[in-house]
Amino acid sequence: MGALHEGHLALVKKSKENSDFIVVSIFVNPKQFGENEDLDRYPRDLDGDSSKLEALGVDIIFYPQESDIYPKNYQTTVSLSKVTKGLCGDKREGHFDGVSTIVLKLFNIVSPDIAFFGLKDYQQFALINQMVKDLNLAIEITGVDIVRESDGLAMSSRNLNLSKAGRDNAKYINLVSKFVVNSFHNNLELYKQKDFVINFVSEELTSKGFIVDYIELRDKDTLELVSEVTKNSMIFIAAFMDNVRLIDNFSFKKRYL
Amino acid sequence: MGALHEGHLALVKKSKENSDFIVVSIFVNPKQFGENEDLDRYPRDLDGDSSKLEALGVDIIFYPQESDIYPKNYQTTVSLSKVTKGLCGDKREGHFDGVSTIVLKLFNIVSPDIAFFGLKDYQQFALINQMVKDLNLAIEITGVDIVRESDGLAMSSRNLNLSKAGRDNAKYINLVSKFVVNSFHNNLELYKQKDFVINFVSEELTSKGFIVDYIELRDKDTLELVSEVTKNSMIFIAAFMDNVRLIDNFSFKKRYL
Repeated sequence: MGALHEGHLALVKKSKENSDFIVVSIFVNPKQFGENEDLDRYPRDLDGDSSKLEALGVDIIFYPQESDIYPKNYQTTVSLSKVTKGLCGDKREGHFDGVSTIVLKLFNIVSPDIAFFGLKDYQQFALINQMVKDLNLAIEITGVDIVRESDGLAMSSRNLNLSKAGRDNAKYINLVSKFVVNSFHNNLELYKQKDFVINFVSEELTSKGFIVDYIELRDKDTLELVSEVTKNSMIFIAAFMDNVRLIDNFSFKKRYL
Repeated sequence: MGALHEGHLALVKKSKENSDFIVVSIFVNPKQFGENEDLDRYPRDLDGDSSKLEALGVDIIFYPQESDIYPKNYQTTVSLSKVTKGLCGDKREGHFDGVSTIVLKLFNIVSPDIAFFGLKDYQQFALINQMVKDLNLAIEITGVDIVRESDGLAMSSRNLNLSKAGRDNAKYINLVSKFVVNSFHNNLELYKQKDFVINFVSEELTSKGFIVDYIELRDKDTLELVSEVTKNSMIFIAAFMDNVRLIDNFSFKKRYL
């Protein structure tokens, strides 16, 4: 969707290792924003984006207009029933239908052999994988690790909308999450208890000025809710700071440095 | 869906004129049958089908199993919102979602340059055209005219389920429809009136033992309901005979012989 930061550029760098021709799509897709969501506020910076992508040797920037993508009488939607339940799916009505539909269209237009998606939007990554499998698309999907600011905040175009104080407090998503993962690896029994972990993170974030949207513990592969924390668990967080919705996720697989 | 008759074979013959490599898919798609519909009764004849297709020089018969097409955890649906309203869309809940989804999957698996669809399933033809446009598929869709038995009944796998008497009466869909089209071309004012035409056809078919499902007059291009009959109109009919659902459609463009 543009307003490219180091997280996006990590996708491009990763694609350089695997591809000899690279297309980057930039399209702020109205169908994945809800009625009260931040479509108008979503940052746009085509000139800045172009410079960054050219510097990395991208071959084509595909920058369609809304009327190219959704012409008059447009009426098709691609929906997935299971992977879109829970997490952002329950909070953002129609969001994932908008994502799967636009991604299928971009796939059909660009016709890639390999496509790269950030793991910050982990549910989106799971969704795309399932769609590719279900619709028999001959495309390899590669996930790229979350890129973080120096204080640990996951990079996002939305971070630009934070106040100075909000931006400073935003780091606590990372700090609190890594603390609970490391406590789990320190064999502290409390941190194996799902409810304790969720309540602990919720209280910590609320005390830092967040309004929590959800905090969930799910299996990294199936995305099913877990009954107790294991190394296969992930913690998924969505929380508002300054009315800006931030999302992040952390694996319990290993201790963080 | 197999049980091939001359209507299907017309698609193959048409494709021979336009293609140098022909794939025919045969898959009785459970997702396009409703709960009370005739999935189990739908005729299947792979041996007979294979002979007919080989004789016509088809290169590949793609005959997948249900578990190939809908493996465990399958969860994706393609839906179109407008073209599926009215006609069979209102009568067969979920039918067209099943059709658009399987056709997209078959397109992705087979990867055709040109695909051929019969005009008997006219709403399906309109649906596929809209989906191809909406999802940016690089596939040319060609419609193939309805093939009829010598008495005018449109060929259909379901005709095999008719009783002898029902099969004989089934010809009246064709006879009555062509009569109203020809009466329109004879400049009989009554036959320009939508309500008169619908009531006339309905009463004629009912008197021959049909249970009418719908009779609608729509524009041939937009599929919108018409307020009066013109040369751009089509009459769409679905009616049960012996509990077998028969569909057909006729253009008002020109007089029938």
